[in-house]
Amino acid sequence: MYLAKVIGRVVATTKDMSLSGSKLLIITRLNERLEPQDRTEIAVDTVGAGNGETVIVTSGSASRLAGTLQKSVVDASIVGIVDTVETDGGVRDVRHP
Amino acid sequence: MYLAKVIGRVVATTKDMSLSGSKLLIITRLNERLEPQDRTEIAVDTVGAGNGETVIVTSGSASRLAGTLQKSVVDASIVGIVDTVETDGGVRDVRHP
Amino acid sequence: MYLAKVIGRVVATTKDMSLSGSKLLIITRLNERLEPQDRTEIAVDTVGAGNGETVIVTSGSASRLAGTLQKSVVDASIVGIVDTVETDGGVRDVRHP
Amino acid sequence: MYLAKVIGRVVATTKDMSLSGSKLLIITRLNERLEPQDRTEIAVDTVGAGNGETVIVTSGSASRLAGTLQKSVVDASIVGIVDTVETDGGVRDVRHP
Amino acid sequence: MYLAKVIGRVVATTKDMSLSGSKLLIITRLNERLEPQDRTEIAVDTVGAGNGETVIVTSGSASRLAGTLQKSVVDASIVGIVDTVETDGGVRDVRHP
Repeated sequence: MYLAKVIGRVVATTKDMSLSGSKLLIITRLNERLEPQDRTEIAVDTVGAGNGETVIVTSGSASRLAGTLQKSVVDASIVGIVDTVETDGGVRDVRHP
Repeated sequence: MYLAKVIGRVVATTKDMSLSGSKLLIITRLNERLEPQDRTEIAVDTVGAGNGETVIVTSGSASRLAGTLQKSVVDASIVGIVDTVETDGGVRDVRHP
Repeated sequence: MYLAKVIGRVVATTKDMSLSGSKLLIITRLNERLEPQDRTEIAVDTVGAGNGETVIVTSGSASRLAGTLQKSVVDASIVGIVDTVETDGGVRDVRHP
Repeated sequence: MYLAKVIGRVVATTKDMSLSGSKLLIITRLNERLEPQDRTEIAVDTVGAGNGETVIVTSGSASRLAGTLQKSVVDASIVGIVDTVETDGGVRDVRHP
Repeated sequence: MYLAKVIGRVVATTKDMSLSGSKLLIITRLNERLEPQDRTEIAVDTVGAGNGETVIVTSGSASRLAGTLQKSVVDASIVGIVDTVETDGGVRDVRHP
């Protein structure tokens, strides 16, 4: 999995049926210092993540074990909203900064 | 999944039978500002995407859950045509600019 | 999938039994302008590709859906020999230049 | 698999149920000289790894074969704590330096 | 699959049970000119590869189709020891230089 920040949303009326009802969020990958890593993806939200939140993203077949995505054409899903990130630099409260 | 732009097509008469009838589109990966990321792939279209359109691409085993690709040797498929991309920069209508 | 050029061959007498009889071709990844991307892999040929040919490569579990590779330890296989590559730059006949 | 160092921890109260009870550790990828490779991920610990330890990380569907993670939305798990790393440069005892 | 060179070994007494008895070799990825690509991984040996040898590595679920690794937490395994590498530059005997 990796840390990411929700930075937007994609709307597509023409899409695979299995994506209907899924929130397609644009995320940018973060390192442990929560700095963007210039890598953006689209992930389906399964935990109610909103714009600007720091999240946990899982990829590949794991992404379809989340929520009701088992038959969906998903290869990345948001599976957690981060409260704190703890490293040698200390504990950062990212959910309620 | 990731954002991409359809930039061309590949024709191959000698190919795995499971690719027969599939449109093999050349796509270039985009970031959230819809800028190309110097990474091109071949993806099978499953939603009627055309040249120049901004699309959603899924990879790996997920790509074979789309359309009729279950038994196909596909590892990337186009599963959506993007209408709008919404980020802090505003809403961009990419389908009807 | 991605575009690649066959640039050589690997011979290994000591190998997993499931690779016996498979042609292990060295391929270099190409972009849409057919320029090498400094990324080489080994892929099993399933369509009779020869040295110098432009091919379509599939990766991961998809590669074992090709030919008779279902039980093979393969993670990349050549599943097409490209005739033409069509982009905004025009149509390039790569098979019979 | 790859070598990594545990450099922190993520706490997320809002997360996929299958992650409940899992320690979400932040890891940074190392090369054979144990130098960080500027690539951080989140992996679930399955062997009792602690902060600062050098570990073995496995990715993709393999990560769910570890411990009790079979149904978890995990795509990376820590499956070993490294004692020594042996290369041409000699044997480095990383667990008890 | 990719070409790699065995450059060392990892020992871990605390590890997932499924890794017991497996040789955890450190490999560095090579291009077609057998030049290291600054990418090291850990792979399980299934063909008796030794330090310094040029090998074929397979990744992902394919790696568990090798030897007796079906239930192992492996995501990369060595499935061949290279005898020769043949490119436009000629045939290089890597096993008995």
